[in-house]
Amino acid sequence: MAKQKKVVAKEQPIILITNDDDITSPGIKALVEAVKDMGRVVVVAPDKPQSGMGHAITIGSPLRMRKMDLFGDIESWQTSGTPVDCVKLAVDKVLHRKPDICLSGINHGANHSINVIYSGTMSAAMEASIEGIPSIGFSMMDYSYEADLTAAKEIVRKIVKSVIKKKLDKHLLLNVNIPGGPLEKIKGIKICKQAYAKYEEEFAERMDPHKKKYYWLTGEFKNFDKSKDTDVWALQNNYVSVVPVQFDLTNYKLKAQLEKANLFK
Amino acid sequence: MAKQKKVVAKEQPIILITNDDDITSPGIKALVEAVKDMGRVVVVAPDKPQSGMGHAITIGSPLRMRKMDLFGDIESWQTSGTPVDCVKLAVDKVLHRKPDICLSGINHGANHSINVIYSGTMSAAMEASIEGIPSIGFSMMDYSYEADLTAAKEIVRKIVKSVIKKKLDKHLLLNVNIPGGPLEKIKGIKICKQAYAKYEEEFAERMDPHKKKYYWLTGEFKNFDKSKDTDVWALQNNYVSVVPVQFDLTNYKLKAQLEKANLFK
Repeated sequence: MAKQKKVVAKEQPIILITNDDDITSPGIKALVEAVKDMGRVVVVAPDKPQSGMGHAITIGSPLRMRKMDLFGDIESWQTSGTPVDCVKLAVDKVLHRKPDICLSGINHGANHSINVIYSGTMSAAMEASIEGIPSIGFSMMDYSYEADLTAAKEIVRKIVKSVIKKKLDKHLLLNVNIPGGPLEKIKGIKICKQAYAKYEEEFAERMDPHKKKYYWLTGEFKNFDKSKDTDVWALQNNYVSVVPVQFDLTNYKLKAQLEKANLFK
Repeated sequence: MAKQKKVVAKEQPIILITNDDDITSPGIKALVEAVKDMGRVVVVAPDKPQSGMGHAITIGSPLRMRKMDLFGDIESWQTSGTPVDCVKLAVDKVLHRKPDICLSGINHGANHSINVIYSGTMSAAMEASIEGIPSIGFSMMDYSYEADLTAAKEIVRKIVKSVIKKKLDKHLLLNVNIPGGPLEKIKGIKICKQAYAKYEEEFAERMDPHKKKYYWLTGEFKNFDKSKDTDVWALQNNYVSVVPVQFDLTNYKLKAQLEKANLFK
């Protein structure tokens, strides 16, 4: 960490940018534009949509990587891998060092509540955090590729500036969700916990031309968490939600219970 | 929860079994054999290897499902989806209700420490836990499909029996790793925390016959966590490790810090 701080102090920070929608999506372009004056920005992102890929990595097949020219004078690479693969490739094969910060997004569509677990955007950010790179995933409550990203860019600038300035923990990991609409409608930025809210799945059943069944994943979003300190509450009330996220999945409360119950003795 | 308890009391429990190695792997067969006298076992598992798929779900393409005849009188289905898809399909399209418990594995290869995040085995178990189904993922410290699973089956029986008997929290989620070798060498079962231990990645660079580069993910396992209450320590000392896992990824410690620092005001 000491070494990394020194580098930051001497030079401008290296900002790695990735996403899960793919390297040509408007969201990643907006993210690059929002922070390009804050350091040396390098983009390493998937060559195709990878939404819902979670923390998948590519083990059984090789990966490809190609230099692109999509963001003016900003260095950019597309890979055939998942968002998590992109972070690994960026560190080992593009930067040959850890960046000072990793930003993922801006995702087209929200990643609040339990969606943090399925999200390729957040999994890329988590991968960086595991590596000891402070990291932030940004998502916007609007699925449309035509959505106005002006307000989102302002929010991104404000949050990234604060995080770079404060030099927080090297494992810092934030899940940021931004309401749609103009900046003046956003009431502020709230630090929240992850809501217990999720999709109740139902598969749509169809028949192919060869009379064989197939299934499409569909679902209805339900919030089971009525407390006011959650990301879902914040977004419903037009706040930006910021959930600090961890990769230690140990359930310490249950651990204590199991130890007390002497369960496996 | 009250309703579920009543069902369990009246009938034998429904035990859903899945994995990530695929439905024909010796590990899932061993898991079925270990618990088939404890309830009505139903298998819904992937039709191909899905290791490292993390919590991926299939959004952009449809899924297929086919009834199999692989486990004698045990009902079994293979799907074209990820391990998480299998759990969702099992609940909505096979069982038409939640099972009383979900078991995932036995994985060929360990899923201790940070591997819980990449593991398809554990992601399937986590999906069940999110749905309110008590769930356990089992992995064995031996990658070989020829490994002797006798000891692992004994450990599985002991743990599943305890969990069914105790009727613990509906979100109960355990990550169980079993050392290789015979039962008499295993010193006991330890309730642990997830170690901060991970692979330090390096991509092997190769050239294809058309003179284009490609990359294979490789890595060296490193343990940065020297404490004695971790899963890595337990396994190194020939104990079975049991890590209670949670799907609330909120980092409450960092949340308090950020609130105190008034970071985004």
